[in-house]
Amino acid sequence: MQPGCDLAGAGDAMMALAEELYPICRSITGNGVRQTLAVLQRYLPLEVNEVPSGTAVLDWTVPREWNIREAYIAHEDGTRIVDFGASNLHIVQYSRPIDALMPLAELRPYLHTLPAQPDWIPYRTSYYAENWGFCLTHSQLSSLSDGLYRVVIDADLEPGHLTYGELAIPGESDDTVLFSCHICHPSLANDNLSGIAVATMLARHLQTLRPRHNYRFLFIPGTIGSLTWLARNEDKVGRITHGIVLSCLGDAGGMTYKQSRRGSAAIDQIVAHVLRQDQTPHNIRPFIPYGYDERQYCSPGFDLPVGCLMRTPNGEYPEYHSSADNLSLLRPERLAHSLAVLQRIVGVIEGDGVYRSRNPKGEPQLGRRGLYATMGGQRTASYDQMALLWALNLADGRHSLLDTAERAGLPFAAIRAAADALLAADLLEPAVGAETSCGGATNLRA
Amino acid sequence: MQPGCDLAGAGDAMMALAEELYPICRSITGNGVRQTLAVLQRYLPLEVNEVPSGTAVLDWTVPREWNIREAYIAHEDGTRIVDFGASNLHIVQYSRPIDALMPLAELRPYLHTLPAQPDWIPYRTSYYAENWGFCLTHSQLSSLSDGLYRVVIDADLEPGHLTYGELAIPGESDDTVLFSCHICHPSLANDNLSGIAVATMLARHLQTLRPRHNYRFLFIPGTIGSLTWLARNEDKVGRITHGIVLSCLGDAGGMTYKQSRRGSAAIDQIVAHVLRQDQTPHNIRPFIPYGYDERQYCSPGFDLPVGCLMRTPNGEYPEYHSSADNLSLLRPERLAHSLAVLQRIVGVIEGDGVYRSRNPKGEPQLGRRGLYATMGGQRTASYDQMALLWALNLADGRHSLLDTAERAGLPFAAIRAAADALLAADLLEPAVGAETSCGGATNLRA
Amino acid sequence: MQPGCDLAGAGDAMMALAEELYPICRSITGNGVRQTLAVLQRYLPLEVNEVPSGTAVLDWTVPREWNIREAYIAHEDGTRIVDFGASNLHIVQYSRPIDALMPLAELRPYLHTLPAQPDWIPYRTSYYAENWGFCLTHSQLSSLSDGLYRVVIDADLEPGHLTYGELAIPGESDDTVLFSCHICHPSLANDNLSGIAVATMLARHLQTLRPRHNYRFLFIPGTIGSLTWLARNEDKVGRITHGIVLSCLGDAGGMTYKQSRRGSAAIDQIVAHVLRQDQTPHNIRPFIPYGYDERQYCSPGFDLPVGCLMRTPNGEYPEYHSSADNLSLLRPERLAHSLAVLQRIVGVIEGDGVYRSRNPKGEPQLGRRGLYATMGGQRTASYDQMALLWALNLADGRHSLLDTAERAGLPFAAIRAAADALLAADLLEPAVGAETSCGGATNLRA
Repeated sequence: MQPGCDLAGAGDAMMALAEELYPICRSITGNGVRQTLAVLQRYLPLEVNEVPSGTAVLDWTVPREWNIREAYIAHEDGTRIVDFGASNLHIVQYSRPIDALMPLAELRPYLHTLPAQPDWIPYRTSYYAENWGFCLTHSQLSSLSDGLYRVVIDADLEPGHLTYGELAIPGESDDTVLFSCHICHPSLANDNLSGIAVATMLARHLQTLRPRHNYRFLFIPGTIGSLTWLARNEDKVGRITHGIVLSCLGDAGGMTYKQSRRGSAAIDQIVAHVLRQDQTPHNIRPFIPYGYDERQYCSPGFDLPVGCLMRTPNGEYPEYHSSADNLSLLRPERLAHSLAVLQRIVGVIEGDGVYRSRNPKGEPQLGRRGLYATMGGQRTASYDQMALLWALNLADGRHSLLDTAERAGLPFAAIRAAADALLAADLLEPAVGAETSCGGATNLRA
Repeated sequence: MQPGCDLAGAGDAMMALAEELYPICRSITGNGVRQTLAVLQRYLPLEVNEVPSGTAVLDWTVPREWNIREAYIAHEDGTRIVDFGASNLHIVQYSRPIDALMPLAELRPYLHTLPAQPDWIPYRTSYYAENWGFCLTHSQLSSLSDGLYRVVIDADLEPGHLTYGELAIPGESDDTVLFSCHICHPSLANDNLSGIAVATMLARHLQTLRPRHNYRFLFIPGTIGSLTWLARNEDKVGRITHGIVLSCLGDAGGMTYKQSRRGSAAIDQIVAHVLRQDQTPHNIRPFIPYGYDERQYCSPGFDLPVGCLMRTPNGEYPEYHSSADNLSLLRPERLAHSLAVLQRIVGVIEGDGVYRSRNPKGEPQLGRRGLYATMGGQRTASYDQMALLWALNLADGRHSLLDTAERAGLPFAAIRAAADALLAADLLEPAVGAETSCGGATNLRA
Repeated sequence: MQPGCDLAGAGDAMMALAEELYPICRSITGNGVRQTLAVLQRYLPLEVNEVPSGTAVLDWTVPREWNIREAYIAHEDGTRIVDFGASNLHIVQYSRPIDALMPLAELRPYLHTLPAQPDWIPYRTSYYAENWGFCLTHSQLSSLSDGLYRVVIDADLEPGHLTYGELAIPGESDDTVLFSCHICHPSLANDNLSGIAVATMLARHLQTLRPRHNYRFLFIPGTIGSLTWLARNEDKVGRITHGIVLSCLGDAGGMTYKQSRRGSAAIDQIVAHVLRQDQTPHNIRPFIPYGYDERQYCSPGFDLPVGCLMRTPNGEYPEYHSSADNLSLLRPERLAHSLAVLQRIVGVIEGDGVYRSRNPKGEPQLGRRGLYATMGGQRTASYDQMALLWALNLADGRHSLLDTAERAGLPFAAIRAAADALLAADLLEPAVGAETSCGGATNLRA
């Protein structure tokens, strides 16, 4: 399957992957993560890393590993009212083991519901403060009578490992493009399966190319995963020239891009260009220090050029962090569109460059080179002629092709095609210092 | 009385001060200024300065001192038609002495009225061109019959002094914040008594603090007073890091801030922030070289960072420079609101600073320091969490707390409180070169 | 005739010139150009240059010279259906000679019409690809029956010369202002005769002045003419500080200014100021590398500060490049208005400068110099007082008078007059490095 050629097929493939991953109980550590990565390894030659509990990572420590076998709340007669077997969301993540009998009044503080959405189960975690609890629908809670309840959580919270997956796709230069998605949410579809599925297919697409840049895909638990990766790769982060955190890419909404902390990084300019040229409604927002792992990548000591691409952002769709964020929220054509947008973003990252005209004084005579209409007097220049004229006019060693596309109001691909025609006609040459890397081009642009 | 704690009380106190000052016949020199400063000395330990007539100040010369005892226009039979005793505004300021009998036709050019507001007396001056004249209502003028009139002005225009008041409140650093108001208008309420009253109470508020900055309050005659002060303090003006001219602060209108000539000085950013966070409608205008003493402070040879804070600006309310700008135009709650805005401005000047995160790589773990919610999965971060995250994310030695508040869209006080919590948790440290002065912070920001 | 004094007369004179030039069959070379320049020499001491065919000019070569005597399409019986004698537009410019008999089917590809405007003859050229063809109304084409047609083009396409006119008006400095218009269009009125007529009268106006700048007027064939001039004057183009290409200046539309490639050149600021102060609707557009000879002046190797002034731009009025762009499209009062706008632009170019206040600390006392109202207390400053105060306040050696006019929101002429009054009162002095040239002033502004 070639996603670039068959986006409908890609949409179905991403749905299938999401469906396979949906039942797994992921958390920030544990076997659910390992099972998830094992599925992804059928698609990609992922390197799976295991980092021991207790390892210091920046200001944090890798926590104990959490694995859960069974959990339920039952009546005294053994009838299970709330059962982890029915939904991964029923248990507060990282709940410690318990087996106790208690009256409702004592149990009540450990029960979490969404009163405004009485049929949805909320998603709650308590990774770093030892606790336990159950999530249930508000309807379930309302139906509970007083009396004694048996509460069982059969889980391990023991020294173990934090597990994450990484894929490096080597390129010609050392400049690195980072794509990062979180894999720590249990049965939640838009908020993490969509990002995982799109990242997987994007990586497969890149494997078919011989890219100029290195690409690095991270499949990591949120927060502690990016902190761990950053701590283990501090020597490499300086090579990251572009990056995007991927999440919430399968719902029916338009596209949302949250800029990097810098706000004017090349990736910010590139994504804005691609979204402006796309027909789908979109929204570009400044960075805020809340959200996904861009919080870590954009912390002041790293300040990496990493933004976040979403459709409807975290917290802004009603089903967010509840059992309603399930597979029915995902639309294959939206997953495919998200992938197509990312492929176009990669197209700009790969295709951008800075050139100089070899005939900078006056326009070169395009007509005798077969690059221009020979019959004059027509009302307006055609689209392709304008792309040629812009690519020539801004080929001054100071404007990238993306700058040119932006100033021309034309798609990057049209300007890239014009530059290729001009290169073939010996009318352009790469600007020194910018020919091999987009990072170089970026520096020239800055 | 603590104005910060009891703004209603402060409003009443400012009204009482304005009422006491209203009857005094102030001008740019003379005993009315001395009486005014004597009243203010009951509130503040003002230093009163006397500068002899004839003293060269920049391109100007301190004029002769003007004092008036009596002035009237009377019928031949002695009946007074226009009497200075009834209103300080009846006399053109700096009128030379006269005692003459003349027909209406001869007197007419010396009579000033407001035909469009026939019951108001205009306010007119002739400081620098020797002249005399009376101001009266247009109704009075219309009722005058032909015939002879006795015109008496019993005034001195003699070598004497220019008088102004100054209060220095010392701070920890040499950086100086200037507040300046004019005290040269006779019975005009919004256009000068409101500024005097608010400046007085603001100075009292500052005396209760131990400020980082020096504060300098000037109570001066317009134009010649600021020129005189600048001429006598040329060696000190370089230390002025912020300044505001105060006028028209008691009327019912919204707030108006006229930027410094620079337009992007720290004071311009600070006032804009405070006004944006306030509920009252406001208007921010670029500098123009017309208005109050900011004309002198912002002349090109000084170009001080001094703006002008008003409610309805000079010339934009109908009562301006007429007998209708009287005490009934002042509202105690507006005086109190103007004072509160200025206290918040001072709060930013005093509280701003530039910090560095001690854990700049990745977010520090706030949860184990009790600074963050431990139960994850909720829909959105709370207000205080966002202030903490912003204060950390922009603690890079390049952003001031005010920059942070602006970027976060949060009130300065929320960011300042977050920074204090982070300082207490040892997560921030002052950026070198910025810890002791806002001037330093300003430089870093520029 | 003094255009500056009598714009109505100037409008009529420009119409008369356009009427005289209209019947001439101009092209990029040939006798039509020579006849056109001969007419202009009655108005201006134009230097006429002849450049031999085959001369290399930048990436181009001066083409063969084209002269046409007769051309027609006739029925077999000799009845002429399309006759060059009836309209210069009937022939595709640079058609090679032909004398042939052919059926309509064979002739058809050589016939050009405007189906959407069936009564207009299009304008077509084929300068650089040898070809031939006729332009006719679509009605004419529709009426043609099958059968044989005689096709005759009696033209020379032989080595000869490219001809262009140039006028240099010397100034005090080496800085040069360029005005350029194309003279290669046959009977087209707005698109080239209007530009020629306005340029001619503007040059006459400048001859009555003793300008600070050099002025250089070019009357040249489009594209190849500007390339030729640039190639022959490469050593001089560095002195061009301002330039405008003139075209489409006689129609009923508002003004359009297309900025130079730089977008922020002094000429861009100047034209924007003049248009903003004018009552006529106007539109300012960024540079695009399509249009008139600004394409060559603004090629990356030259990047000259040259914009393009038009009323309705090329391609945006329906009559463009057709027989409907005839004399009836021109309005004398619009030609006169275009000229007036250009005279005001020249007024700014000539009158701009950078000054320093000799009394920069505080305002100088304008009253004792007779420059300020002596009676104070009035509601607002008058217009002239504001111009004086702005000219003083920004006389800091960093702001030009045009900057001052822009910031004050006043016409340049008001600020220039204020500066003259202040210079006469010894209150201003030219800023060193800026007193002799606007180029200098421009540099200071940058």
